[in-house]
Amino acid sequence: MIGVGIVPSPGEMTTGLHIRRNCRLGQFDGLTAGLAPGHVQANLVILPSEWAADFLRFCQANPKPCPLLAVSEPGSPALPVLGADLDIRTDLPRYRVWERGELAGSPTDVTSVWRDDLVSFVIGCSFSFEEALLQNDIPVRHIALGSNVPMFRTSIPTQPAGRFHGPLVVSMRPMKPADAIRAIQVTTRLPAVHGAPVHIGFPQAIGIEDLANPDYGDSVPIEAGELPVFWACGVTPQAAIAAGRPPFAITHSPGCMLVTDLKNHHLSLL
Amino acid sequence: MIGVGIVPSPGEMTTGLHIRRNCRLGQFDGLTAGLAPGHVQANLVILPSEWAADFLRFCQANPKPCPLLAVSEPGSPALPVLGADLDIRTDLPRYRVWERGELAGSPTDVTSVWRDDLVSFVIGCSFSFEEALLQNDIPVRHIALGSNVPMFRTSIPTQPAGRFHGPLVVSMRPMKPADAIRAIQVTTRLPAVHGAPVHIGFPQAIGIEDLANPDYGDSVPIEAGELPVFWACGVTPQAAIAAGRPPFAITHSPGCMLVTDLKNHHLSLL
Repeated sequence: MIGVGIVPSPGEMTTGLHIRRNCRLGQFDGLTAGLAPGHVQANLVILPSEWAADFLRFCQANPKPCPLLAVSEPGSPALPVLGADLDIRTDLPRYRVWERGELAGSPTDVTSVWRDDLVSFVIGCSFSFEEALLQNDIPVRHIALGSNVPMFRTSIPTQPAGRFHGPLVVSMRPMKPADAIRAIQVTTRLPAVHGAPVHIGFPQAIGIEDLANPDYGDSVPIEAGELPVFWACGVTPQAAIAAGRPPFAITHSPGCMLVTDLKNHHLSLL
Repeated sequence: MIGVGIVPSPGEMTTGLHIRRNCRLGQFDGLTAGLAPGHVQANLVILPSEWAADFLRFCQANPKPCPLLAVSEPGSPALPVLGADLDIRTDLPRYRVWERGELAGSPTDVTSVWRDDLVSFVIGCSFSFEEALLQNDIPVRHIALGSNVPMFRTSIPTQPAGRFHGPLVVSMRPMKPADAIRAIQVTTRLPAVHGAPVHIGFPQAIGIEDLANPDYGDSVPIEAGELPVFWACGVTPQAAIAAGRPPFAITHSPGCMLVTDLKNHHLSLL
């Protein structure tokens, strides 16, 4: 579990800029769910430029798990389209550092391991579509329970690109049928944050044997009359890093997202 | 079963105008599924003007089963927005005549029972969205089997309006989960022909005890790994007529639709 010992006052956490500054100053290192309502939160992958072209192709070939919101210049910690003041080395609550596909640490700042050949990839996150679901009065079980969404490695392979490959990872939300139909409509409008579901109804058909044992996140109960609905998940790139084994990589720590200045409403196709 | 004894050559059945002329000349009295590809086919309800305001309100309150494409002037057999040459008394292959909510006949022409107070309501039909499903390479079971779609009276009440009320009638198409998701997207674009499904997955939740025994149409097999997907159906008004018991009404005979000059592509929201 991520530490939540350092928590600024809520009044300071209502915009992406506030949260990024608190992270940079060492005043926040917790989970970002529910913070800065309305603002786009995002997954992060940082790779050496020698691996960047492969990963860019991997995202292009797998747009549902890996919808790219922005890509940095090599070596630059700035991502001006996501926030004028943004420094990708310091502005997330917590990171994961990977060496040859293995987790090597979970620091709150990656300045000390920064290199001038690193390229940052910022990938859309389900928090944006969950906000849209709640605005449509569609209950989201794990949010109601205050837990993390359950995520599963599937038997669906991603489209390989260069050295990157691996399983599609999905998140699951149980829903009443009419809510599931509306959720498909709502998330169809949001391809930049995983878009429409990839499966509904039969977990075993996509290689999930036990919904009560997710590979990441927390399990949630499924009530009678509910269908499990599965969306492509931004954890998929972490599985591809574990499979592709680049010598060095940085990602966000699960649940500790990059909070941007973009607004969720602006992502909607319609 | 509707007679298909009188069948003109296929070359004469490629537009709404061709089909309506053949009906008018007594040269066609069969099912219209698959005829005049690309053209909008429609459900028909004809009521005395004294009942028209109630029915108009019924359609407004129940847009998923009763999406109105056109309403005539009282007494006029013309519907110029659907076809310049259209005469609603002669241009369908076969009709149903209703007296006090009971079926009183199935003529191929209603000129002899026409009255100068009759108002025609033309309502979108699932044939339009089925064409869109097939264009998206989504198999439609009853079409593959050459049978009618299975339809069911549900426990979902329509919104009553004046003297009209009754159950929502739905049509059911079994689909693989990914096809069901795509079908929800495709039909969402088509609110004029019933739009998105009203239910998916649990027939008993909407009062359907046995999918093998439809109330109208033919049963179709559901394969392992398929979900039953339910759309609001244009037969709903016939159930409302049976419940509301107007002294006189005319509808199309099931499967013998009005074929218009409108194009299915033009109905799409997007």
